Amino acid sequence: MSPKITTELLKQLRQVMKSPKYVQEPVQAYIVPSGDAHQSEYIAPCDCRRAFISGFDGSAGTAIVTEQHAAMWTDGRYFLQAAHQMDNNWTLMKMGLKDTPTQEDWLVSVLPEGSKVGVDPFIIPADQWKRMSKALRSAGHDLVPVKENLIDTIWPDCPQRPCKPLITLDLSYTGVSWRDKIVALRSKMAERKVLWFVVTALDEVAWLFNLRGSDVEYNPVFFAYAVIGMNTIRLFIDGDRMMDPAVREHLQLDSTLEPEFKIQVMPYGSILSELQAVGAGLSTKEKVWLSDKASYALTEAIPKAYRYLTPYTPICIAKAVKNSSETEGMRRAHIKDAVALCELFNWLEKEVVPKGTVTEIIAADKAEEFRSQQKDFVELSFATISSTGPNGAIIHYKPVPETNRTLSVNEIYLLDSGAQYKDGTTDVTRTMHFGTPSAYEKECFTYVLKGHIAVSAAIFPNGTKGHLLDSFARSALWDCGLDYLHGTGHGVGSFLNVHEGPCGISYKTFADEPLEAGMIVSDEPGYYEDGSFGIRIENVVLVIPAETKYNFKNRGSLTFEPLTLVPIQTKMIDVNLLTQKECNWVNDYHQKCREVIGAELERQGRHEALRWLIRETEPLIRVQ
Amino acid sequence: MSPKITTELLKQLRQVMKSPKYVQEPVQAYIVPSGDAHQSEYIAPCDCRRAFISGFDGSAGTAIVTEQHAAMWTDGRYFLQAAHQMDNNWTLMKMGLKDTPTQEDWLVSVLPEGSKVGVDPFIIPADQWKRMSKALRSAGHDLVPVKENLIDTIWPDCPQRPCKPLITLDLSYTGVSWRDKIVALRSKMAERKVLWFVVTALDEVAWLFNLRGSDVEYNPVFFAYAVIGMNTIRLFIDGDRMMDPAVREHLQLDSTLEPEFKIQVMPYGSILSELQAVGAGLSTKEKVWLSDKASYALTEAIPKAYRYLTPYTPICIAKAVKNSSETEGMRRAHIKDAVALCELFNWLEKEVVPKGTVTEIIAADKAEEFRSQQKDFVELSFATISSTGPNGAIIHYKPVPETNRTLSVNEIYLLDSGAQYKDGTTDVTRTMHFGTPSAYEKECFTYVLKGHIAVSAAIFPNGTKGHLLDSFARSALWDCGLDYLHGTGHGVGSFLNVHEGPCGISYKTFADEPLEAGMIVSDEPGYYEDGSFGIRIENVVLVIPAETKYNFKNRGSLTFEPLTLVPIQTKMIDVNLLTQKECNWVNDYHQKCREVIGAELERQGRHEALRWLIRETEPLIRVQ
Repeated sequence: MSPKITTELLKQLRQVMKSPKYVQEPVQAYIVPSGDAHQSEYIAPCDCRRAFISGFDGSAGTAIVTEQHAAMWTDGRYFLQAAHQMDNNWTLMKMGLKDTPTQEDWLVSVLPEGSKVGVDPFIIPADQWKRMSKALRSAGHDLVPVKENLIDTIWPDCPQRPCKPLITLDLSYTGVSWRDKIVALRSKMAERKVLWFVVTALDEVAWLFNLRGSDVEYNPVFFAYAVIGMNTIRLFIDGDRMMDPAVREHLQLDSTLEPEFKIQVMPYGSILSELQAVGAGLSTKEKVWLSDKASYALTEAIPKAYRYLTPYTPICIAKAVKNSSETEGMRRAHIKDAVALCELFNWLEKEVVPKGTVTEIIAADKAEEFRSQQKDFVELSFATISSTGPNGAIIHYKPVPETNRTLSVNEIYLLDSGAQYKDGTTDVTRTMHFGTPSAYEKECFTYVLKGHIAVSAAIFPNGTKGHLLDSFARSALWDCGLDYLHGTGHGVGSFLNVHEGPCGISYKTFADEPLEAGMIVSDEPGYYEDGSFGIRIENVVLVIPAETKYNFKNRGSLTFEPLTLVPIQTKMIDVNLLTQKECNWVNDYHQKCREVIGAELERQGRHEALRWLIRETEPLIRVQ
Repeated sequence: MSPKITTELLKQLRQVMKSPKYVQEPVQAYIVPSGDAHQSEYIAPCDCRRAFISGFDGSAGTAIVTEQHAAMWTDGRYFLQAAHQMDNNWTLMKMGLKDTPTQEDWLVSVLPEGSKVGVDPFIIPADQWKRMSKALRSAGHDLVPVKENLIDTIWPDCPQRPCKPLITLDLSYTGVSWRDKIVALRSKMAERKVLWFVVTALDEVAWLFNLRGSDVEYNPVFFAYAVIGMNTIRLFIDGDRMMDPAVREHLQLDSTLEPEFKIQVMPYGSILSELQAVGAGLSTKEKVWLSDKASYALTEAIPKAYRYLTPYTPICIAKAVKNSSETEGMRRAHIKDAVALCELFNWLEKEVVPKGTVTEIIAADKAEEFRSQQKDFVELSFATISSTGPNGAIIHYKPVPETNRTLSVNEIYLLDSGAQYKDGTTDVTRTMHFGTPSAYEKECFTYVLKGHIAVSAAIFPNGTKGHLLDSFARSALWDCGLDYLHGTGHGVGSFLNVHEGPCGISYKTFADEPLEAGMIVSDEPGYYEDGSFGIRIENVVLVIPAETKYNFKNRGSLTFEPLTLVPIQTKMIDVNLLTQKECNWVNDYHQKCREVIGAELERQGRHEALRWLIRETEPLIRVQ
């Protein structure tokens, strides 16, 4: 990896920072955040502005360029990568280290008195603008919105914003029509006495209209906004996608509809002016509901007194609770995904053990190949983490030619992968050894497994937030002085983003919404030994009601049902470290894998993989 | 309990709310919060203003009186009590219920346009003022400070502010001299670049100067403030307490000292003007450190730009980590406390079983009597919760003649009690049956015990916050659909407040400080069956380093050591519900009780109680 040479680019950027063509007054600093206008986790190539100006293309980082300096803030995952990808023009600001200044403090320390700091108001979330603007103002500077994105002005071959065809999802996939979703949304709006709701997150637009797209890799979403009134629906979307007869039919664009369900289609770029018009027309006590993560530009379009901001939107919360059509779809998707992985692991055993010719990249490609053979496969749900030996200890590893390692009988192999099927989204991690694991490797694996089971089998009252379960996953590791430095689980969309809010299982959050039946999260504790190996065991699990002996205050209880049905390598388990209850959990789980996935392998005529499955799901026997 | 008749009082209050003698402009509403000027949990009689005006004397509640209305906000613990104690002039606002308006919303709904809302600026914490003031201002009203407390003006027989003699603690109790505490505090101030620190919490003043008092029941504190500069120490305290030669000697008031350790003693009432003088003398970049819970009056004395506010002060954090003299003192206090409880339980068995003449109040008094026989006993550390049968299910129960119940062989008895000894503070709950418990009672008790053990035996990494351990205490209850509606533990002071920050074990908090070796908390899960019984098992436990097999990233691990050494009634345990590990924990614990408390009972010649202890600590035997 050689760094990107940015001297000329920075010179150009500093010029436009002073050019009356783009800025009303010169700005002494310009901020380039990571995100897009929808605060997406995964972004399209045209939104990779921070990577363009700096060379650093990790998933998190903020660049700030002043007349004299260029600095990049990123976190511990990316210190090495950023240092490799950026040239000497850039100073790396290592977030999380004690002596690293915040962006605000740094700006205050380098800027001349009374400076202006510019930022694209569509890219910065409103809550972040507020914090930064306050800090700068108290030091005598101003944060100012720069309408035209200054990176775009110096990016001649900037990719086009994608505008790919849409997929319509019928009731058999979604369970609820978009009309009924609008009705439910309006009833939530009425409850909170708001007249308008602005949909800014891409997965929320996709979910609301039962549409999917492919504008962003891994996330089946499309660039759009929506503004829902009590009697109006406005969808802001570009391209000839609305000319597709299937889409017109789906959205009933050409039907005679009650006016409150008539969708007005408007250009993507007109959201701001339309929202400003809404804002201008409001009278006392009329409120507009936005996410507090919406962009500063859109938030500012609504006068402050009329804004109703919440951390989680009603769509985010409704989307998280899957209905029976969605959970059935997720089940189907996970069965197909398990078939692909049984094929893969069977193939790996045949290739790795005698030949030693399989690299991390080959294994990842093979996993994709097997998945793509399954019905309704669309794409991967994230970049496959295919890592062997020491690479497994790099939590966000993705194999590239420079790091690509060959699988062997001497190393642990960790595969974290998933796919988008039209009926659901998968995300599964298995950790395998193709030779003979050491006692220490088995010991660590077994602690991780105990943590996985502790969460998966946990029973907890209705209303419990996921962060309260996080320690269950760590307890067995803690007992021996071990731990892992990531959360235990995240929400998973239904043929949507593989990471979604508002629930999860992590010590880091507190403001997550309580778990409820129908929510789907991952359960993925791990253990990582730097320079040696990584272990992670991940299932996607569905929150379901639990039967309990008693029922305190009639609250009811919940537990999890694994949707992922892929064998957990018993060779890696030290059975004597398991309790009888844990041993039974593994055996019951494997019995279910054998029955459900076995039947599907049989149906698909995949007999060799079936034999592998049966061998891998032999019951554990615990010596008392 | 008959309600207090408040018609005349409210009339008087409404008069002074308009009287130019007390208010610059009439106020249309007056807020009477619960607390005192130090945001204390326990308050002196002269500070019970809310109880005086309303009749409601629970520990939490805010009264607001307008020209037409009088309303009281309190939480679920006190709905019944408040309803009984207040007359028809008052509206009860049940906090936590969906339809209950906030104080701000209610004020906005009842006040005429452009109203002024008054409050004593010494009683309202700054963070609360900020929130309330903002809400009122956005509705066109003003929150205004009323210098003279209006309740005091209509309270002719208002008790005097207590001004009792001080106790000096020498190094054998405190481990660190007040001079060294000042040095450590100044070094924290230098780290944060602040020039002044204002000590507002009573236990922080007491801890800093190694002094104790008895101005407030249960909490060995005294009314005082302190302002610490880099070269000055000002102690604001009233009365002739500073004439006591022991106190003068302790504080070296008459010695020739380096100027930076010379304590200037000033009147309690002069804190505001002195602080205003400090505030007026500040120049750029000079900061004053205050708790964000300090009163609005004191916070406002420092211009905004010069304030440095934190949720936990450096004294709060230093005080929580006990040194070896303090932990040794706590150990001694807990041994004496266990002796008293062994005597009590032995006495109860002799009285309750054959005679049936012991009431909850008699039992509580007897517990105090046995404690008071122990060396260095000062007072109780909180009002004894002595509750039998259904009273045990009332979590904050305190027996009064109207509710006083007789202990019997048919009911579970719950005793939550503690004391202040000169060497430490205790807080212990035991749940006993003097007859034959039902299978269900034993089952519930055993789940609570499993939760207690899960926390007490937990091993967790350095840096873990207590709230991450809360679910361990609930897991066994959750498995059967049971739970309890309070936190699992609180910090405990060393001959100081029985409840102290900044650590604890509760699902409710997130901003607690990480646990570290030397901190002391309670471990007190429970189960409460309304109308039938209450179960709670509480030990005070010390955070200690744990030896583990591995040591991830050299972080080190922690666990707990019980300081409380009182037998847990084995009659209440269903041994078959315990794992072997849990069974061993109970047996090891009882072995330690027998050794340590047995030796002390022997030494004190308390042979009958010793026989009781030996019987109660027989090992459990688990049938495999």
